[in-house]
Amino acid sequence: MKILVINAGSSSLKYQLIDMNGEVTIAKGLCERIGIDGKFTHKVDGKEFKKDVDMPDHTAAFAQVKEALTEGEGKVINDLSEVTAVGHRAVQGGTAFAKSVRITDEVIGKIKEYQALAPLHNPATIKGIEASVATFGPDVPQVAVFDTAFHQTMPEVAYLWGIPYELYEKHGIRRYGFHGTSHRFVSARCCELLGKPDGKGTRIITCHLGNGSSIAAIKDGKVIDTTMGLTPLDGFLMGTRCGVLDPSAVTFIMEKEGLSPKEMDDLMNKKSGMLGISGVSSDDRDIAAAIEEGNPRAKLAWDMRTYQIMKYIGGYVAALGGLDAIVFTAGIGENQKLLRAEILEKMAYLGVKVDYEANDVRGVEREITTPDSAVRGFIIPTNEELVIARDTMSLV
Amino acid sequence: MKILVINAGSSSLKYQLIDMNGEVTIAKGLCERIGIDGKFTHKVDGKEFKKDVDMPDHTAAFAQVKEALTEGEGKVINDLSEVTAVGHRAVQGGTAFAKSVRITDEVIGKIKEYQALAPLHNPATIKGIEASVATFGPDVPQVAVFDTAFHQTMPEVAYLWGIPYELYEKHGIRRYGFHGTSHRFVSARCCELLGKPDGKGTRIITCHLGNGSSIAAIKDGKVIDTTMGLTPLDGFLMGTRCGVLDPSAVTFIMEKEGLSPKEMDDLMNKKSGMLGISGVSSDDRDIAAAIEEGNPRAKLAWDMRTYQIMKYIGGYVAALGGLDAIVFTAGIGENQKLLRAEILEKMAYLGVKVDYEANDVRGVEREITTPDSAVRGFIIPTNEELVIARDTMSLV
Repeated sequence: MKILVINAGSSSLKYQLIDMNGEVTIAKGLCERIGIDGKFTHKVDGKEFKKDVDMPDHTAAFAQVKEALTEGEGKVINDLSEVTAVGHRAVQGGTAFAKSVRITDEVIGKIKEYQALAPLHNPATIKGIEASVATFGPDVPQVAVFDTAFHQTMPEVAYLWGIPYELYEKHGIRRYGFHGTSHRFVSARCCELLGKPDGKGTRIITCHLGNGSSIAAIKDGKVIDTTMGLTPLDGFLMGTRCGVLDPSAVTFIMEKEGLSPKEMDDLMNKKSGMLGISGVSSDDRDIAAAIEEGNPRAKLAWDMRTYQIMKYIGGYVAALGGLDAIVFTAGIGENQKLLRAEILEKMAYLGVKVDYEANDVRGVEREITTPDSAVRGFIIPTNEELVIARDTMSLV
Repeated sequence: MKILVINAGSSSLKYQLIDMNGEVTIAKGLCERIGIDGKFTHKVDGKEFKKDVDMPDHTAAFAQVKEALTEGEGKVINDLSEVTAVGHRAVQGGTAFAKSVRITDEVIGKIKEYQALAPLHNPATIKGIEASVATFGPDVPQVAVFDTAFHQTMPEVAYLWGIPYELYEKHGIRRYGFHGTSHRFVSARCCELLGKPDGKGTRIITCHLGNGSSIAAIKDGKVIDTTMGLTPLDGFLMGTRCGVLDPSAVTFIMEKEGLSPKEMDDLMNKKSGMLGISGVSSDDRDIAAAIEEGNPRAKLAWDMRTYQIMKYIGGYVAALGGLDAIVFTAGIGENQKLLRAEILEKMAYLGVKVDYEANDVRGVEREITTPDSAVRGFIIPTNEELVIARDTMSLV
């Protein structure tokens, strides 16, 4: 069985064709600058096929995907009919979706309802779904896998904030959490590594550290708290997002700088975080290079992030009532050994002992604490596409 | 030596006359509704003298204080000349004041400079100081003791947020922390109780829980982090303040509800917290009564606060690299045994063991953990006025 996994952005479309026999990625690629000038990349067996091609909308992007998969040098299937089903990454499923679902008109309606909570992301998801249905026709099952779903087990005390309760009832203002598919994948794998595949009795913290980052506290295999909130802004310093901030600083800045809510959102989402503090870049590699060159603000950004992460971990250890394992995943988590080591070192009070040799690695699954460490630390590469493909298969 | 301690609000003035021989409060009182209709209360030896009296401004309020101290039934001194110096509680001292200071024109100028950061509090402090100078004349020393001073030892990683660094440089947007005088008093006492009066080698968390609440992490006697931020809004659920909130929720609410920054501030400061969630009251006694009656939202507010406090404590334990003692103080901290017990129970993962019998007490200094508890827990009644009086004495 072959499953096509789709991750649609407002002007982009990522795809991955996965053969579920052996869970092998047969081909993958990216449509960029949809509706602008159009760039298309298709990858098969380590070979890359690139072209500039006009894609006025997501349906046009799907036509490129179809052509790349079924024709020419990068061809991997004869016909789209070989695709059994399509799985879509969806960002904001609100409280309606605690699991992945077969897409129906009702489901599309719900995703549209939650547009107010994710004005950038949900319309893109809808575009991807509609273009997919237009391409594959009504008989090919489409599945939605929500970033928020895995976090739906959080208790009220964790997902509510101390603002008037009516605002939660009226607008759905609460913590939803994101990167759920990734937290789910790596925490499930961690439970296997702990010898408790059903998760019972486990207390795990998963650190998804990438350009966007979040941490989750997972007890008995279920999320009890996470750093991202109503939107993917909350938490700790990310590439360009500020993370945690005194709420009175938000209104203070707006007043001093004469910013509208939209402009303030832009400032907090696009000009803050590692970029805002360092003044150098949002990219960790640039930050690391600047630190090497002795840039004090690059070092400050780095240290602030480590400090904030440490505090969240400490808080989640309290919420979990102790800790069995901590997992690092995603671009930075899998590749940045220094950050992993720093975080683990700050957990020495819990009896954590770093295995520096094991930690000296990039992007592979590995235990990075010593055998006598009181908490086990792991790198577990994430694979959100595989989770989406698996969910899609199990639903069709 | 007798010291008069003044805590001026925008329409109120609290005073306490302390004889530094034995550190005894001789008289205290409160001028309320200054500039409105005026209510005056004077207390001596458990006796209370009340009257309604017009006080158009703070200087008029001082005239009432002078009369009450030197004339009639509540008289405790013959003449104001018996007052050696006046100590003022000041809220926001920014980065200029890491210690208490003799008030000069320059100091008043600085307090005015920081008005932008504390538009409600600093003008009131100035009113109190100016009225005091007008009353006592230029020869009686006046001292300012800042709420923010004790927190000035925080490192950059703790006091900065991930917003553009330029906003910190331009507007001074950072974590200042408040209740510093209280955190200082109870942490110093805690160090004595730990047998380390100089604080060296101690790791302490102080919980000032009142209508306004904050927690501080104190290492070697110096604050390394605290929950309140730019203003006293940040942290966890207070009577009417929301505490921690996803910054994107601030702009989201403003947009949905059409609120200005000022209106949003009002919502977060006056309609949120225990009141906003419970819908019952901002007063802990009312909340406790409502929980008794089975009110689920009162219980929710209570549990949210405990949960948020627990997370901060966990984060600070991480920042401190372990913990020697935790202190509860202020109205709720000294009197609410249930909340203390709940918080300590959630610290069981650190080896904390509650002494329930010792904890069954209100407003007295007491160790409330068992002898075999890995972390010592204390109730230490706070006394900010005494700190102000001591600082004033040592500066004159």
